[in-house]
Amino acid sequence: MAKYMVSFMPTNRSAMVEEGTTIAEAARQADVFIKNLCGGEGVCGQCRVQITSGKAEADEQARAFFSEEEIERGYVLACQTEVHDNLEVLIPPETRMEGAKIMTGEAAGPEAEGGAKPLVRKIFLEMPEPTLEDNISDIERVSRELRRKIGWHSYEISLSCLRRLSEKLRDSQFKVTASVAKRGGGYKILRIDPGDTTSSHYGLAVDVGTTTVVAQLVEMSTGRILGVSGTHNLQASFGEDVISRIIYACKKDGLGPVHEAVIKNINQLIDDLTSEKNISRDDIIAMVAAGNTTMSHLLLGLLPCSIRLEPYVPTADIYPQIYAREIGVQINPEGILETLPSVASYVGGDIVAGVLACGIPDHPEVRGLIDIGTNGEIAIGNN
Amino acid sequence: MAKYMVSFMPTNRSAMVEEGTTIAEAARQADVFIKNLCGGEGVCGQCRVQITSGKAEADEQARAFFSEEEIERGYVLACQTEVHDNLEVLIPPETRMEGAKIMTGEAAGPEAEGGAKPLVRKIFLEMPEPTLEDNISDIERVSRELRRKIGWHSYEISLSCLRRLSEKLRDSQFKVTASVAKRGGGYKILRIDPGDTTSSHYGLAVDVGTTTVVAQLVEMSTGRILGVSGTHNLQASFGEDVISRIIYACKKDGLGPVHEAVIKNINQLIDDLTSEKNISRDDIIAMVAAGNTTMSHLLLGLLPCSIRLEPYVPTADIYPQIYAREIGVQINPEGILETLPSVASYVGGDIVAGVLACGIPDHPEVRGLIDIGTNGEIAIGNN
Repeated sequence: MAKYMVSFMPTNRSAMVEEGTTIAEAARQADVFIKNLCGGEGVCGQCRVQITSGKAEADEQARAFFSEEEIERGYVLACQTEVHDNLEVLIPPETRMEGAKIMTGEAAGPEAEGGAKPLVRKIFLEMPEPTLEDNISDIERVSRELRRKIGWHSYEISLSCLRRLSEKLRDSQFKVTASVAKRGGGYKILRIDPGDTTSSHYGLAVDVGTTTVVAQLVEMSTGRILGVSGTHNLQASFGEDVISRIIYACKKDGLGPVHEAVIKNINQLIDDLTSEKNISRDDIIAMVAAGNTTMSHLLLGLLPCSIRLEPYVPTADIYPQIYAREIGVQINPEGILETLPSVASYVGGDIVAGVLACGIPDHPEVRGLIDIGTNGEIAIGNN
Repeated sequence: MAKYMVSFMPTNRSAMVEEGTTIAEAARQADVFIKNLCGGEGVCGQCRVQITSGKAEADEQARAFFSEEEIERGYVLACQTEVHDNLEVLIPPETRMEGAKIMTGEAAGPEAEGGAKPLVRKIFLEMPEPTLEDNISDIERVSRELRRKIGWHSYEISLSCLRRLSEKLRDSQFKVTASVAKRGGGYKILRIDPGDTTSSHYGLAVDVGTTTVVAQLVEMSTGRILGVSGTHNLQASFGEDVISRIIYACKKDGLGPVHEAVIKNINQLIDDLTSEKNISRDDIIAMVAAGNTTMSHLLLGLLPCSIRLEPYVPTADIYPQIYAREIGVQINPEGILETLPSVASYVGGDIVAGVLACGIPDHPEVRGLIDIGTNGEIAIGNN
């Protein structure tokens, strides 16, 4: 099948697409953001673009959105216009999503109130070497030292972490750093690294918004915010609001692309933050994500279909702790991801995060949170 | 490099190998078992074979193991003789490992004493469909029904199991079968299948011996043993005793091949048992393995090096519950593997399994277990 080059101005990004692809899809492939309120149904008229080179005509139905003069100047709806020629497409300011400012808050916030209680702790262990009188197994030696340092808990360990443990302990004269995550009543040992690595200990907090995705890089031992970066949610090309995205995700083979779009966003933010702060992705060992119920489902690749239909049931409102790698997020391969729980199908983990951040459950006086977003939510309460 | 065909009689298996490969290695590639007490050092003289076609000569040192007449008839040590010609190799009876009978016990054992308490339970759940008055999340609906049926526990779930849950529940009118494994104080939901699948519920019990590997296929709901199959441990080509195998596994890149050999054994046994009983690998959802401490380490791919050296410390004596797929065992992809704990570096999970099977911890009278193997162990005790 013939292929054509579609270039988008003013960003000058382009994509080579097959004949018959829509301009909106070409924009998605070129990572160019175009407004798209109805999810490509051709009814909202938001994705107006101007063809400045090459041949493409507005279809009959879409002509209703334009004046005669605009049609003469080459205006079409990106979602309703197929590519049959090499095209240069100008995205007018009103159609651009880049125009909107992304609120990222303070780049360097205060230290966490009341000391940091990080999701993953790094603990330096100096252990006595085994003798004939003290020849317990390697993992029992590690657990014993952890019990001395952080108390009598059960300590789970993954197979991959156990595999080279023997070598790591001996190569480092039994001085290692354990990264442990709370899990149920005990801890899970995620990694054991030779030597003292407690000074490189980072986490990621991600706000998965319907419109924008914002990530903070956090120093886990102090709770200090080292950097923040935001971007438009790439899922916008599948619809601007949650309902359009649910509809897209619930079409045949629709879930994968919508899920992968936000993963691409997050990995891009990780790239930005780690290059800016000159740290390694591998030093990020934990990630927390908060989003509305639909965003949390799409993040984890859960089918969101029944959220939209009476009686409005999500797959989950409490999400399992997983390895970030399970959904393709590129932090340390043993790094975990926790997704904040939702309250209901339309009261999500973003509100839960806000309530926690405002300290509502920690204080006797009544406090309030007002989230003015695409939808508005108000939470009021105390401890 | 030139390649030659080496055929082994009387099994008529063959391998195409590069010039300079030893006959012992060629046998390994052809899955032919040859005795090999010293692990290929050329000092035990056990791997005597006769070259019946093609040119190969016993090396100078190895000649000490043969009479003049034997040398004239083409006898060589398989581990000390390189391939520089197409060869036909006769394995005399005394060198064959196939000759030894593998004890597999009773093919159809009694039902488990005191009712089956399987590692993984399958529970059929018939749930009410969601309404506006009862619109809890899908996973909470499953957990609620599990609590009704098996009690108030915490229920963990894997991401993969959660992913298509919404669809599965609705496609099956909220009638599904949950496979759950004990984990810590609660349960882990391994799978949720549409409809009632409780009649296909199988487990595998594997004795990972240094010499032989034996597997039983068990009907999990009754504890009935449906079939049993045994084979020589393919690790024999890396040495016949545990010490030789530890030495091999602790050489550079040595662990992988020794680990993979026993996985190949187990997958072959699963093949045999599932074809014989005409069931699917996917219906096997749990596996228990017992072996001495070194065998358990090699099964899981843990470095066994320090087991051999004073003060004789294993990596682990209690092993994590893992997915069988993590080590390449081909049962249901969500199926779990538990490895019986060891007591010490030279008192393994095989003895623990024997003590449990004899009912020693369940009865007030003193009972004894005598394991007459390559090493001998005696356990005596009561509850």
